[in-house]
Amino acid sequence: VLLAIDIPRVVIERLPVYARTLSLLAADGIEVVSSQELGTRLGVTPAQIRKDLSYFGRFGKQGRGYQVRPLLEQLQQILGLDRRWTMALVGVGQLGRAILGYGGFKPQGFDIVAAFDADSRLIGTEVSGVHVYDVKDLRRQIAGSPVHVGIVAVPAHEAQDVIDSLIAGGIRAILNYAPVVARVPRHLRDEVQIQNIDPVLALQGMTYYLKEASETSAK
Amino acid sequence: VLLAIDIPRVVIERLPVYARTLSLLAADGIEVVSSQELGTRLGVTPAQIRKDLSYFGRFGKQGRGYQVRPLLEQLQQILGLDRRWTMALVGVGQLGRAILGYGGFKPQGFDIVAAFDADSRLIGTEVSGVHVYDVKDLRRQIAGSPVHVGIVAVPAHEAQDVIDSLIAGGIRAILNYAPVVARVPRHLRDEVQIQNIDPVLALQGMTYYLKEASETSAK
Repeated sequence: VLLAIDIPRVVIERLPVYARTLSLLAADGIEVVSSQELGTRLGVTPAQIRKDLSYFGRFGKQGRGYQVRPLLEQLQQILGLDRRWTMALVGVGQLGRAILGYGGFKPQGFDIVAAFDADSRLIGTEVSGVHVYDVKDLRRQIAGSPVHVGIVAVPAHEAQDVIDSLIAGGIRAILNYAPVVARVPRHLRDEVQIQNIDPVLALQGMTYYLKEASETSAK
Repeated sequence: VLLAIDIPRVVIERLPVYARTLSLLAADGIEVVSSQELGTRLGVTPAQIRKDLSYFGRFGKQGRGYQVRPLLEQLQQILGLDRRWTMALVGVGQLGRAILGYGGFKPQGFDIVAAFDADSRLIGTEVSGVHVYDVKDLRRQIAGSPVHVGIVAVPAHEAQDVIDSLIAGGIRAILNYAPVVARVPRHLRDEVQIQNIDPVLALQGMTYYLKEASETSAK
């Protein structure tokens, strides 16, 4: 049983990376990994790993390393990765099609079960085996379905409306590809998770270092 | 002149979000914003904003709020967003095409100037106005070019080779869409920036909260 402590979000967000690395080790037949080796693979210190895992109980013994498969299974259970999660995609343009065609979701337990678009030529068709519904019906359809996650792949100026409809339909986890800072109603801020997939923000987080490097080398 | 202090990476990664929010305010004609209002829009505390900005000098006056446009311009300069950055894309499949067709890069100063693929039917063609070269020539072409950023959109099992070639060609900033934990040679760890665009990791960072919520409501 977990204690009712607030685990920092940054810790929660690191755990999937731990789980992925452990699953690669398991796939290579490796049974035990030292915190040193795990840290090197993850680019974090062994102390950081121990601290992150300490929120969830005791893992491994000092000096003995971690048992790869048991630790992986515990992390999967903590994160809910041992379940199947269903998703609805909104926006079946070029990006939406790439998302529907992406083979990486299903093997990890994430299944796109419905798509929504405003284009009458798309509504009623199937794209990559997923039925496209009218986006006008988004809120109603979502409210009556067991969908866990909404994926937003519409243009920026349509994104907030779509996010509002998803939240109104009961969705509490949103993967947002639109380049907007999404707003969540104040009383739902603690309940609704939004993860932004934003390549421009990611790029802008790197140019600082490129600029610094070019200025250093120019001296 | 900046002091030679190590600014935490998490701070650097928040600044683009600040800049985006400020540019939205500027576009709305708003000239001054309180740290309270800016914090609400960003989902962080006013104290966090003040602390983040304090790494770069003094901005705003206690109780007077921030001047939107001057602060935006300073952030853009700090992050190098006032320049043009050139990028090369590797992998012109469904995802690569969506990236080439994405309209959000160029207005922000990020310009894809070359693409690479192994498919002989694509080599020599143009996709969304960008020439496709043979991926065999990747390292050589990159080494002789002013490209700043490499975008990796190849399947997982090809990604590390591509990343190795980009780094060997002199690239120091990589936007990686492949679902791999990329390795960087040890002696270049401080120099090479990799940002992963990984929807599965983003999803896995949310399921913890969905699981917790479902368990709480089931009690």
